[in-house]
Amino acid sequence: MVGNTEKFPILRVTEKSRDSTVDEVVTEFPLVITLDNHEVVTLLCSPTNLKYLAVGFLFSEGLIKSKDDIKEIIVDDERGMVRVETKGVVSQPSDKRLITSGGGRAPFYHVQGQAKVKSNIEISAPEVLALLDEFVQRSAVFKATGGVHSAALCDTKRILVFSEDIGRHNAIDKIFGECMLEDIPTAGHLVITSGRVSSEIVLKVARRDVPLLISKAAPTNMGVRLANDLGITLIGFAREKRMNLYTNEWRLRGG
Amino acid sequence: MVGNTEKFPILRVTEKSRDSTVDEVVTEFPLVITLDNHEVVTLLCSPTNLKYLAVGFLFSEGLIKSKDDIKEIIVDDERGMVRVETKGVVSQPSDKRLITSGGGRAPFYHVQGQAKVKSNIEISAPEVLALLDEFVQRSAVFKATGGVHSAALCDTKRILVFSEDIGRHNAIDKIFGECMLEDIPTAGHLVITSGRVSSEIVLKVARRDVPLLISKAAPTNMGVRLANDLGITLIGFAREKRMNLYTNEWRLRGG
Repeated sequence: MVGNTEKFPILRVTEKSRDSTVDEVVTEFPLVITLDNHEVVTLLCSPTNLKYLAVGFLFSEGLIKSKDDIKEIIVDDERGMVRVETKGVVSQPSDKRLITSGGGRAPFYHVQGQAKVKSNIEISAPEVLALLDEFVQRSAVFKATGGVHSAALCDTKRILVFSEDIGRHNAIDKIFGECMLEDIPTAGHLVITSGRVSSEIVLKVARRDVPLLISKAAPTNMGVRLANDLGITLIGFAREKRMNLYTNEWRLRGG
Repeated sequence: MVGNTEKFPILRVTEKSRDSTVDEVVTEFPLVITLDNHEVVTLLCSPTNLKYLAVGFLFSEGLIKSKDDIKEIIVDDERGMVRVETKGVVSQPSDKRLITSGGGRAPFYHVQGQAKVKSNIEISAPEVLALLDEFVQRSAVFKATGGVHSAALCDTKRILVFSEDIGRHNAIDKIFGECMLEDIPTAGHLVITSGRVSSEIVLKVARRDVPLLISKAAPTNMGVRLANDLGITLIGFAREKRMNLYTNEWRLRGG
């Protein structure tokens, strides 16, 4: 199995000095996903939780609807391949290419028909900040390499599922794939991401009935609008004990 | 024309306070690129320099080889469409999907056949740090929104071409598209990027004969290996007056 990181000899350089040292660099791993013997995609990803990534990706793309669609999953770590066999008829992948700002996923023109998220869950600002502390502490590969994104599924008190990947979409697909295969409910829960919130990220969490989306980074305008329309509470720039609350603010309890 | 940013009313929240204010959020714009009436892709991007983005993208994908291939470029800002007409036969887009860690581009399996970059250019550490200062100062949208990537083409003394986009691939495609259409040479020059350096980014600059690639962020292991193999000097984590030198270190003059 390929490691999460690889060490390289480097020079650390300042205006006046240069020192030989060793740097730990994040691994970039090509993963081929096939669905019923049809090659769907090659993802460049971090080489962990490949089964969860494949299932999460296929769900995000609308190619499988639930765990019940799946007959068998065969993971080949060495060759970088996950083969998913379904029980019968699944959707056919579209030929049209959509390349998004950071991951090439989740057609935004599939927004039509997406139902609003209808959870009454509320959370306080101190609870959000406590979850963020835990989230930052969990990110081992980021600490080592500065090169990965993280995502987590949480309730209001703790992190339930956590993942890391060089792609912000992959990290979220991994948590949703794990939830699907391990029967962990996502409805009424929170997602935390280290990555930017574009419209596809909002759509991705909406499809799992997640009412609260918290990002350490910035949202885009379409991300904000879509979160507003789909009933999702969107928090951005959540770091250093502060956050920006963009939409559906009633879920953040005052005081 | 769509603006680069959009303002939203938000709440700024800390553990103990919440204040109403207005936040400037980066625009996410869907751009359809067609090549000889064939719809190639929908990019989610920042709505600037769409002509350069389209041409840079088509070059990065290997669908056009030079400015000479192009007969006409029609930009429709309102509908979010760039139509590129060629003079004759161009490559056909592949049906296979490759989704990369951050932008879904530049098949890494096209590495074979890529020639080494053979420039003798050298630069000093103070020159790199001075270019980085200018690079950070130029990023207006980032300062306003925290939500975009930047890229620049430079010589050893100054920035020649600069661009911003919500996607790190788009930002680089925009500078190379501008260079191609405006007859600005790239061979023997430097590229600075705010984004992570994965293998596709290295391949992209190699195809433009760029010998020096400087990133404010982290590289991946395949990024480092490919830079080494293709004769590119790769500098990462270039910020706060420091940098890591990963490959082909002879181009960074000592002292």
